[in-house]
Amino acid sequence: MGKKDISVKGFKASSIAAGLKKNKSYDMALIYSEREAVAAGVFTTNKVKAAPVLLSMEHILKGRARAIIANAGNANACTGSEGIRNAELTAELVAGELGIKKEEVLVASTGVIGAQMDMVKVAGAIPGLVGGLSEGNIPLAAEAIMTTDSFPKISIFEGKAGNHPYRILGIAKGAGMIMPDMATMLSFIITDINIEREELKKAISSSVAKTFNRITVDGDTSTNDTVFVLANGAAGNDKLNAYDYEGFRDGLKDVMNDLAVMIVKDGEGASKLVHINIEGAASEKDAMAAARNIANSFLVKTAFYGQDANWGRIMAALGRSGIAMEEKYVSIWIDDIRIVDSGMAVGAEQEKAAAERMKNSSFSVKIKLNIGDYQYKIVTCDLTHEYISINANYRT
Amino acid sequence: MGKKDISVKGFKASSIAAGLKKNKSYDMALIYSEREAVAAGVFTTNKVKAAPVLLSMEHILKGRARAIIANAGNANACTGSEGIRNAELTAELVAGELGIKKEEVLVASTGVIGAQMDMVKVAGAIPGLVGGLSEGNIPLAAEAIMTTDSFPKISIFEGKAGNHPYRILGIAKGAGMIMPDMATMLSFIITDINIEREELKKAISSSVAKTFNRITVDGDTSTNDTVFVLANGAAGNDKLNAYDYEGFRDGLKDVMNDLAVMIVKDGEGASKLVHINIEGAASEKDAMAAARNIANSFLVKTAFYGQDANWGRIMAALGRSGIAMEEKYVSIWIDDIRIVDSGMAVGAEQEKAAAERMKNSSFSVKIKLNIGDYQYKIVTCDLTHEYISINANYRT
Repeated sequence: MGKKDISVKGFKASSIAAGLKKNKSYDMALIYSEREAVAAGVFTTNKVKAAPVLLSMEHILKGRARAIIANAGNANACTGSEGIRNAELTAELVAGELGIKKEEVLVASTGVIGAQMDMVKVAGAIPGLVGGLSEGNIPLAAEAIMTTDSFPKISIFEGKAGNHPYRILGIAKGAGMIMPDMATMLSFIITDINIEREELKKAISSSVAKTFNRITVDGDTSTNDTVFVLANGAAGNDKLNAYDYEGFRDGLKDVMNDLAVMIVKDGEGASKLVHINIEGAASEKDAMAAARNIANSFLVKTAFYGQDANWGRIMAALGRSGIAMEEKYVSIWIDDIRIVDSGMAVGAEQEKAAAERMKNSSFSVKIKLNIGDYQYKIVTCDLTHEYISINANYRT
Repeated sequence: MGKKDISVKGFKASSIAAGLKKNKSYDMALIYSEREAVAAGVFTTNKVKAAPVLLSMEHILKGRARAIIANAGNANACTGSEGIRNAELTAELVAGELGIKKEEVLVASTGVIGAQMDMVKVAGAIPGLVGGLSEGNIPLAAEAIMTTDSFPKISIFEGKAGNHPYRILGIAKGAGMIMPDMATMLSFIITDINIEREELKKAISSSVAKTFNRITVDGDTSTNDTVFVLANGAAGNDKLNAYDYEGFRDGLKDVMNDLAVMIVKDGEGASKLVHINIEGAASEKDAMAAARNIANSFLVKTAFYGQDANWGRIMAALGRSGIAMEEKYVSIWIDDIRIVDSGMAVGAEQEKAAAERMKNSSFSVKIKLNIGDYQYKIVTCDLTHEYISINANYRT
């Protein structure tokens, strides 16, 4: 991305230190579209949904939005009717200050579960947020939604629809949790493309399925996970033809993929990025179950950390994943080194070579089940001492 | 149990250092019934089953057995047809030496996955094992099946069927894994009660469901998990009446429960024993899913380690467990201290008191879902730095 200007036509942003985080860094962000934008979103599948998730699910039904107000430091989850009222009030205050409708404001929160939001701080911060809106401030918004992420996550894509250049700009925060409870994935994506809502929804759902839904740090789905996409049409392109739609969808997928990989890289305590590729499964469901069981196995993840080509743990994880499989058809590779053939060890030499590859900060594990044609990819990280330290700390 | 003599009428045992473990400690055990015994077993549900599991599943169909031969140091899993042949050969050699049929020999292994068994060492050890058989040697057998367990696991129950006293004696090894891959639960239980096979099977399946199937260290089911129960009838009781059957079943459950709790206490790196009790679920399936999701959550387990009454993580684990639930009906207790009422925090004082309880080496977490009548209990441990160290080590 280099020194490229990180902005999208017609969008402004700002951030502020409202005092919701203890360390006085930025903790509230506002993203604003000068014109009405087509809006769609994806939310946590957790049955315990935070108040801002419940509110935004309602607001986004309108299909149009103008603003995203987000905070770190408090998840506003498990906070009952007072929590709902506080999320509503936040939207109302932002709408009032911007002179738009409250239904045009989307709300997202991340932070401690179970504590009521300090509305005096929130309300006090909103005029400053609106006053500070500027086109160049998206990177500051990326900073403000960080909890214990070690770096802000930003990705940008440039495309053309017909002759009209457009941009897709995404920011995200991951599951970094030096302060316990902050297990939320948030991503906000803005684009100036002119796109219909149904097209946008289709592009989002196909892209999320292959990006954000293909990463796992520890298998824990949070109460607050949210992805918003706002498209304001400022690029001025005509209705998308099939070719341009695909270009947009692929661009969106690239942006989401960038952000998703950054989230895993920045996973709590992670020292390795591991691509798990399942091939030859009997169904897509099986391929997914196999990938997830391996990626979330305590034992497999600690072996990644230990740089040990410990394929017995991978076989055991496959065997308990409930999928159709036959041990004797399974082959396993670390990068391009085959360590298991027909369910059995290839040899000590290969395992040693594979262990060498596992010293790299990123490697792949390919598993061929050889009983069907379905495949599935997932990206995960290792399970480290640092993860335990981060998550065993007292809440402070 | 004190200094009580640890033996059962008509059973002998022995153990030997065959050289399968690197540290030259006992690594093979033989348990022998002087008379034909009724036999039943329970095996891993993992689709990847070790060779001795496949062989013993076949042998136990006969319903009768005379011997259990077990080894640590090598799991004989993912070893193909050579592995099967080696398990068969082991049974044949033991049968030959004891002068019984090979189908009367049950085989169990635990240790490294994917390596062929050193049959020269195994064959060399069998005469010594048979020669060393003695009534008082059951504790040595419990030692021989240890891999990285820090203590041998033995439990004994004494009952009466009619006027006939009988004993149930169980030994087990758990999922201690200082050497990676040794994630196997083995338990061998011997009794001199006279019982029919169908009764024994019924008693085993009801007892296993409430004991061995209610513990979890890390959610990883091994390729080798095995429980054998041998009943030789030496107590001389008549056919069991309902009352005596129930006495036996409860005794068996007590023995299995003792062993199961010992396994969790001795889980890799565990510093806390935690009882998870789900109440008020809409179905037993839901109650079980809730208990397992909580007990296997990386985040919940690290909070136990951190002695943090971090109920937000418990709520999030409930929410993603796929069960019927309503956040606003959930209450949570640590021991007798309620920290969540109607889905919301009770207060900082209660959380502080709960955190005090969590400093104990054992405590309970009770979750009332308040939408049904079903309950489920599970016993688990925390996730610690030591677990990572143990499991990230290179295989040696």
